[in-house]
Amino acid sequence: MVYELWYWNGIPGRGEFVRLALEAGGIAYREPPRETEGALGQDLEADRDHPPFAPPYLKAGRMVIAQTANILLYLGEKHGLAPTTLTGRLWVNQLQLTIADWVTEVHDVHHPVDSSLYYEDQRPEAARRAAAFRTSRMPKFLGYFEKILQHGPSLAKGRWNYADLSLFHMIEGLRFAFPKRMASLEPDYPGVMRLHAKVEALPALKPYLASPRRLPFSDGIFRHYPELDAA
Amino acid sequence: MVYELWYWNGIPGRGEFVRLALEAGGIAYREPPRETEGALGQDLEADRDHPPFAPPYLKAGRMVIAQTANILLYLGEKHGLAPTTLTGRLWVNQLQLTIADWVTEVHDVHHPVDSSLYYEDQRPEAARRAAAFRTSRMPKFLGYFEKILQHGPSLAKGRWNYADLSLFHMIEGLRFAFPKRMASLEPDYPGVMRLHAKVEALPALKPYLASPRRLPFSDGIFRHYPELDAA
Repeated sequence: MVYELWYWNGIPGRGEFVRLALEAGGIAYREPPRETEGALGQDLEADRDHPPFAPPYLKAGRMVIAQTANILLYLGEKHGLAPTTLTGRLWVNQLQLTIADWVTEVHDVHHPVDSSLYYEDQRPEAARRAAAFRTSRMPKFLGYFEKILQHGPSLAKGRWNYADLSLFHMIEGLRFAFPKRMASLEPDYPGVMRLHAKVEALPALKPYLASPRRLPFSDGIFRHYPELDAA
Repeated sequence: MVYELWYWNGIPGRGEFVRLALEAGGIAYREPPRETEGALGQDLEADRDHPPFAPPYLKAGRMVIAQTANILLYLGEKHGLAPTTLTGRLWVNQLQLTIADWVTEVHDVHHPVDSSLYYEDQRPEAARRAAAFRTSRMPKFLGYFEKILQHGPSLAKGRWNYADLSLFHMIEGLRFAFPKRMASLEPDYPGVMRLHAKVEALPALKPYLASPRRLPFSDGIFRHYPELDAA
């Protein structure tokens, strides 16, 4: 069976957290929305028992699984991308959900009052939200993961897991969106930075990271507006 | 084993989604933060392998499980509060994660730019966010669940599941926070309202709903500011 990942074409977005797990796990998948224009819009209209609220979603045979953390929970158990104990699986899911909260906050920095409008329509509000995000939220999340990584090189026992991959991508995204702020923060979080470097060097992931399958950041969740960044 | 639920005392908050599952499932639990002042602050300082990023968290013997949807995933499997098939479990988790996103949006209506400040410090921004929430987000979420409930009286096959309980609580919270808007929207979502009534009448839940264990809404996630509500 070849999985199908369905996500908006053109941005890494939330789909990237799933893509990294599929790539690092050496799992075969296709992305129909990147093959056929308009495919996603049409597929979202399909009448099904278990409709997604929003992309990304994964088709696994007859199953349609949505919500990033839920897709990763499924892939993690099925393909050994997470610990096999109950405690370990719940722990990695917990971390992924914490990353999901962080992702939502990153998005809301540039869309603090209305996700259906443009950033340009909410610039003063975004400036306030960005200041709070840079000053209190970034250190809070980074500090949380740093504390965990004092216990070992990975977020959970064993080899890498999907939450490690997601934390790598968070750092990538934050560096893109807030380069000045990250430059000043990174020295304080050596464990997080070591994990980032470790994931970046995974043999199974390196070809993907250098390939055109990996989409560059642009106008997705992680966005770089110079006026929202500061050291 | 008696579970311990750890959450901020005084508000239903995210803890209520867990409480409803424990109560409806007839599962024994204690809430140390409601027994001893300052207990939660102290417990959060404890050095542990699997620290929570934030309450709620559940102590289950030696396990400490955080993130509302993760706690419910655990309780759901262990106590039959969710389907037993893989497809069914993932589906209910997916729905719970969608409700979690909705909860975050409800909170951000009154805290759109800085969660560490008071509502009074972000009133103009809150007014904009509230308008978008009432006009586009409430119908979008309600419509999503309504579509699912056209297939049956519960969000998944079988008797009630923990996502049913959570949707009940969402409706309770929205009625408290946005009474005018809910009064005008409710007739359009008969399936959701039938589910709400069904959960409210569950014999295992009725005593709890009438008890002082159930905390009233106040200054938590669901807040009623008349200026943020409109039909």
